[in-house]
Amino acid sequence: MPLDDFRRYGHQLVDWVADYLATVERRPVLATVAPGDVRAGLPARAPDRPESFEAVLADLDRVILPGITHWQHPGWFAYFPANSSPESILGELVSAGLGVQGMLWSTSPAATEVENLVLDWLVDLLGLPSSWRIDTGPGGGVLQMSASDSTHTAMVVARERAVRAGAEIGRLVVYSSSQAHSSVEKGARVAGFGHVRAIAVDEVHAMDPLVLAHAVQRDRDDGLVPCAVVSTMGTTGTTAVDPVRSVAGVAQAHGIWHHVDAAYAGTAMICPELRHLQDGVELVDSYAFNPHKWMFTNFDCSAFWVADRRELISTLSVLPPYLREAASQSDVAVDYRDWHVPLGRRFRSLKLMFVLRSYGAEGIRHHVREHIRLARGLSERLAGDPRFALVAPVPFGLVCFRHVDGDDATRALVAAVNATGRVHLTASELPDGTTFVRVSVGQTGTVQRHVDALWALLDSLAG
Amino acid sequence: MPLDDFRRYGHQLVDWVADYLATVERRPVLATVAPGDVRAGLPARAPDRPESFEAVLADLDRVILPGITHWQHPGWFAYFPANSSPESILGELVSAGLGVQGMLWSTSPAATEVENLVLDWLVDLLGLPSSWRIDTGPGGGVLQMSASDSTHTAMVVARERAVRAGAEIGRLVVYSSSQAHSSVEKGARVAGFGHVRAIAVDEVHAMDPLVLAHAVQRDRDDGLVPCAVVSTMGTTGTTAVDPVRSVAGVAQAHGIWHHVDAAYAGTAMICPELRHLQDGVELVDSYAFNPHKWMFTNFDCSAFWVADRRELISTLSVLPPYLREAASQSDVAVDYRDWHVPLGRRFRSLKLMFVLRSYGAEGIRHHVREHIRLARGLSERLAGDPRFALVAPVPFGLVCFRHVDGDDATRALVAAVNATGRVHLTASELPDGTTFVRVSVGQTGTVQRHVDALWALLDSLAG
Repeated sequence: MPLDDFRRYGHQLVDWVADYLATVERRPVLATVAPGDVRAGLPARAPDRPESFEAVLADLDRVILPGITHWQHPGWFAYFPANSSPESILGELVSAGLGVQGMLWSTSPAATEVENLVLDWLVDLLGLPSSWRIDTGPGGGVLQMSASDSTHTAMVVARERAVRAGAEIGRLVVYSSSQAHSSVEKGARVAGFGHVRAIAVDEVHAMDPLVLAHAVQRDRDDGLVPCAVVSTMGTTGTTAVDPVRSVAGVAQAHGIWHHVDAAYAGTAMICPELRHLQDGVELVDSYAFNPHKWMFTNFDCSAFWVADRRELISTLSVLPPYLREAASQSDVAVDYRDWHVPLGRRFRSLKLMFVLRSYGAEGIRHHVREHIRLARGLSERLAGDPRFALVAPVPFGLVCFRHVDGDDATRALVAAVNATGRVHLTASELPDGTTFVRVSVGQTGTVQRHVDALWALLDSLAG
Repeated sequence: MPLDDFRRYGHQLVDWVADYLATVERRPVLATVAPGDVRAGLPARAPDRPESFEAVLADLDRVILPGITHWQHPGWFAYFPANSSPESILGELVSAGLGVQGMLWSTSPAATEVENLVLDWLVDLLGLPSSWRIDTGPGGGVLQMSASDSTHTAMVVARERAVRAGAEIGRLVVYSSSQAHSSVEKGARVAGFGHVRAIAVDEVHAMDPLVLAHAVQRDRDDGLVPCAVVSTMGTTGTTAVDPVRSVAGVAQAHGIWHHVDAAYAGTAMICPELRHLQDGVELVDSYAFNPHKWMFTNFDCSAFWVADRRELISTLSVLPPYLREAASQSDVAVDYRDWHVPLGRRFRSLKLMFVLRSYGAEGIRHHVREHIRLARGLSERLAGDPRFALVAPVPFGLVCFRHVDGDDATRALVAAVNATGRVHLTASELPDGTTFVRVSVGQTGTVQRHVDALWALLDSLAG
């Protein structure tokens, strides 16, 4: 495509995105297609000859949009948010335009140094240990694709440390609470662990460190090797917060790698009044949170820190001859290739820098606090209505409740609310099997009137 | 940022990208900064208060661009290309604007179905087995971030198959040629394999299947369990092509998972006259190639197919309660969450669809053939000059040669050529330690005059 066409279509698509974001609220949140509809609307085979770009773009409105579930809809209360922002979208545009591949410092110093910088900024913004700053500490941060990748990477580093110390992979054990994200089990399985323990939780769904300590001791007595534990700050089910300091006590006593999965709630640590929830974080070995969930930064963008980068790099560094010439021998110019499984990498930090500078720390704090205020307001309404019962505290932006008439009534309510197309909620299950509703407040455009509208729906549809 | 500002800055940044691409040829290919320069040019701490977007954008020209190594420069002959196109950049813009997370079919059917479709298109375009089409076959394709991820995933599936059959991880062995990409060793190590064999190559740097067969037999005799073999189509060093059919014979005889890493050269299979190079591909278990290398599609975009998707899904599926409601039970509506390590995923297939439809198969073939023609033209010039010696055949777009005066002269030539700033080359080493120059022709804008200019530099600087 000639660059003049790129300008013209680019302007057109910027306006298309702006129009989309301006009007997304009027669309049903969930896609309206049946399986196969999108595919059936597109050419069955790739064309031999070029199609006009007009024809390709026409399919955006005709075929693609009906097949979109609108994560950027302000009535998005499902899962966790994947909120974005105009600034972040523009960051993606620039990154795509530059088209660099930052596997080594030398293959685009700006990609590496901006990533170093914004991850160091975040250490301070989230109240994490300053020794995790790459410029001063033995630690350091890297952007991964997802928290699943971060967790998996932590598992691999922990495993290699244990194997180097003489343990057999088949004897290594990973621990997390029964409410940890599925990525812990998946990451551990992918890393080859045969033993993954789901530790029982207390009445607020947080890991019970005494149960952990007993499980670790029992495994040791059985000749197994406790290797890694994952504390979750903000579980996916109910945003429960595992007691990081107590878990760290167990981990340190037994030489176990301690990873914190703060995928969702890490963003909230930008608010000093919430940092007591990560008390003990200076004792852990690695930590991940996803700016792509609640920090207005487009998916994908997961921040991962290790307290000591040498263990990470020694596990993941393989230096072939075709990279040797350009590889950095310097501590200032790190080669991020050695910080994760893939070799190549996009310039992902640019969008995050755009967001952090454009919002400012106060701007992000403001929006996070507002989301939490909206969530708590909804939880108070639910608590005051005899048809509903809260099933968990509301430390962040997630409200968890059930219908007092039982699981069928709860499921019927979720289905009825979703069927309106105006909002989207998801259901989940407590450890005891009770079905409950998750209301996750955190989409960029969600304000009071959207939560009010949700409440009106719950009120009218709950029977 | 208000949407009106997004429109204004969006138009401005589209023009900025167009200007960048129009003028990149005038820039030195390599970044001109010293370690730390980029970081020092940016705020040491994240701002508390919002910065103006003008200030943020001003840093693009002032700080970021000097720190960019220009992969989109038509004088880019280093590594392999990571070529892009205006169409692909626009696909990234739309994908970022929609901001969907396609972990499940239901969380954006279009993201899943477009990915199904374009990967099925590619099966036909590249002459891969039609049973790999997800719509008809037991196989199927998925987009991963990089070929490293694809290789690692194949290793994990192979490992789990062996473990389910009763093998111990500690006894499993992975094989590839000594010229395979470092991601094979890395992926195998990350997956927990303790035994990774580098099989000797023949005089054109391709895996010797007899050596492989002997190594497998020796390992079996030693009580080890041969588990996976990776054939490379287009090695990173010299684009050597392993004999897929012969390797498949060994793999099938011993029940070994056979993965083909066609990261770079897979794109060339769109040309029927080159498909003899993947003879036997219908016998393998998995295959990966990177549209983000040579198919005009922005990084990241790696296509990965398995011959039987059930083995992949059974290895990677973990279904927690908060996803159960929305998960698909249908073969038409697959949940890509179960096809790779991460849970979340971007709408990455959109840019690939934009490229395939805008170029058409003939358009891509034209450019690939042109790159190969340019590479062969350069190789003929080198072959005709007594100062140079080719060190490998030129099946694709990579020319490998050395200075006849030896390694020092070769290295000096690379340094001198790179120092001009007009082109960028990389050096590597043959199995015997000989240093050689890699000239990779494949950047989107590279045409005859750029290769002529490179030749003029080589001619004048070779002494």
